[in-house]
Amino acid sequence: MTAAFIGIDWGTTHRRATLVGSDGAIVAERADGDGALACAGRFRASLEALVAGWPEASPALPVVMAGMVGATIGWQAVPYLEGGTPLSELPRHLVPVADSPPGRRWRIVPGWCLRGEGGAVDVMRGEETQLFGALHLLGRDASDGCYVLPGTHSKWVRLQAGRITELRTYMTGELFALLRQHGTLASAMQAPGAGDAAGQRHDGVADAPDFLRGVAEAARGPVLTHALFGARAQVVTGAMAPGAAAAYVSGLLIGAEWADAQRRPSRDEPVRVIGEPALAALHAACARAHGRRLEVLDARRIQLAAWRAMAAEDLQP
Amino acid sequence: MTAAFIGIDWGTTHRRATLVGSDGAIVAERADGDGALACAGRFRASLEALVAGWPEASPALPVVMAGMVGATIGWQAVPYLEGGTPLSELPRHLVPVADSPPGRRWRIVPGWCLRGEGGAVDVMRGEETQLFGALHLLGRDASDGCYVLPGTHSKWVRLQAGRITELRTYMTGELFALLRQHGTLASAMQAPGAGDAAGQRHDGVADAPDFLRGVAEAARGPVLTHALFGARAQVVTGAMAPGAAAAYVSGLLIGAEWADAQRRPSRDEPVRVIGEPALAALHAACARAHGRRLEVLDARRIQLAAWRAMAAEDLQP
Repeated sequence: MTAAFIGIDWGTTHRRATLVGSDGAIVAERADGDGALACAGRFRASLEALVAGWPEASPALPVVMAGMVGATIGWQAVPYLEGGTPLSELPRHLVPVADSPPGRRWRIVPGWCLRGEGGAVDVMRGEETQLFGALHLLGRDASDGCYVLPGTHSKWVRLQAGRITELRTYMTGELFALLRQHGTLASAMQAPGAGDAAGQRHDGVADAPDFLRGVAEAARGPVLTHALFGARAQVVTGAMAPGAAAAYVSGLLIGAEWADAQRRPSRDEPVRVIGEPALAALHAACARAHGRRLEVLDARRIQLAAWRAMAAEDLQP
Repeated sequence: MTAAFIGIDWGTTHRRATLVGSDGAIVAERADGDGALACAGRFRASLEALVAGWPEASPALPVVMAGMVGATIGWQAVPYLEGGTPLSELPRHLVPVADSPPGRRWRIVPGWCLRGEGGAVDVMRGEETQLFGALHLLGRDASDGCYVLPGTHSKWVRLQAGRITELRTYMTGELFALLRQHGTLASAMQAPGAGDAAGQRHDGVADAPDFLRGVAEAARGPVLTHALFGARAQVVTGAMAPGAAAAYVSGLLIGAEWADAQRRPSRDEPVRVIGEPALAALHAACARAHGRRLEVLDARRIQLAAWRAMAAEDLQP
């Protein structure tokens, strides 16, 4: 099969590159730690080395990059598209990399910006490409609905008639990592048995009573800084085992997203999760706790659908 | 004047020692960085050096220590008193230091623990001594009411008939410091013009439009992880100057305490702040934003009233 296209999900700390064949199948994949932070000042060399590492790939293959590679901390700052833009038009808004050698088609996917009432604003970079993939995988009508893309910055999105109409980002994974590495909760959250909302050591956390207790506490709508101190107070008074603190805090943080979703007009629709299995399991536990339906979409399949659709657009005469 | 008593507010990172005369006046004061963390394994030597540094103080003087010195990370873990205990009885519950030389009266003040419905629990260490001081300074009847003791872990307390009947702790200062030092908001929060809710560089923050904008946003009751990402989204889209992020986040965090207070049964009473002037000014701005009355109590006067009352109890035959 002929390699035809390279799609790269290029985040802050990680990068996943996919070599797509002319028939839309995956020819090869590579994931590494050359994220935007690690590549500062050497993005071009890093991309050239990546392509050179694939004997199947001609250096002239078109490359499309999504994620923080287009942020100010990335290779080239690419302006956000505004909320009203139809998601299907994403391939028309790719921005050529100024720093590319002659004859190369290297382009960056713009992020998305949504403005709300009273000056509210929210942004994404990278997730728009996953949503573009969902649109292609599910079809425009069936893709209507509510999505959650969990992670460092968890995104809750509404797709409506092929447009992103709502976006709310929660600093869930980042705050979990900060609390776990620093500060007064850190030692308890590193105790044996601790879960990790940022993607490691999740085994059993979704079903852990402490995770669910955190979700239940979050459902009461407490001020988060108070609920977090509550975790410490429970540990120092012996009401909670130190080993349970990480799962409880994970439940508080992810549960706060669900409590927020429940405060919005109730809809008889499933919440679709696009994320790795361990994070999807945590969200599934929250959905059960709130009596909501949940559909898990395979994040890699979604991403591939996006690259395949972009490649097809590229290969059109 | 004869030195008669040593009171020490011994926190996690700082220590303030007060030498009280037999007439209740301050003979000398010393503040240093020998907090509980720095003194691990050498509390006794550190206290002996402190006393030896005061020519006015006999080594046999009674010493009372409040704060994290009585926590598991401190000199000696001292159990919490339970909520119902009258605050006036605090001097009867001081716990002798096991590691004291013969003939010494070294004691640690126990912290306070309040239990609520559904297993809720909250704790303080050090603030009970300040509240004991307020009780003595204001008198038992006049001391009834709502207090806020801002800082790393901000405490909201209700005193009623000489008892602590409510306690809510918010991880305000700690979260502010974490966000400022680490993570995606850190660079914006360190930009010139940034305020510091943990006590430094507060000049003008209380009146800054960005602080007040954060307070107003917090009043809408958003999920904090979402509001924090909102600060980032405003910076990356140019809606907020990077230099404004620290004041805005400070407003979000302190404002969340006030929004929580406003959700409780409304009371026509002032909120009393016991804290350093810069933090008191931030709370005064929140009180104005919410149309609440505020009284600032001088934290050093409160602390001295506590030591004076404890000294008087000690000097009784």
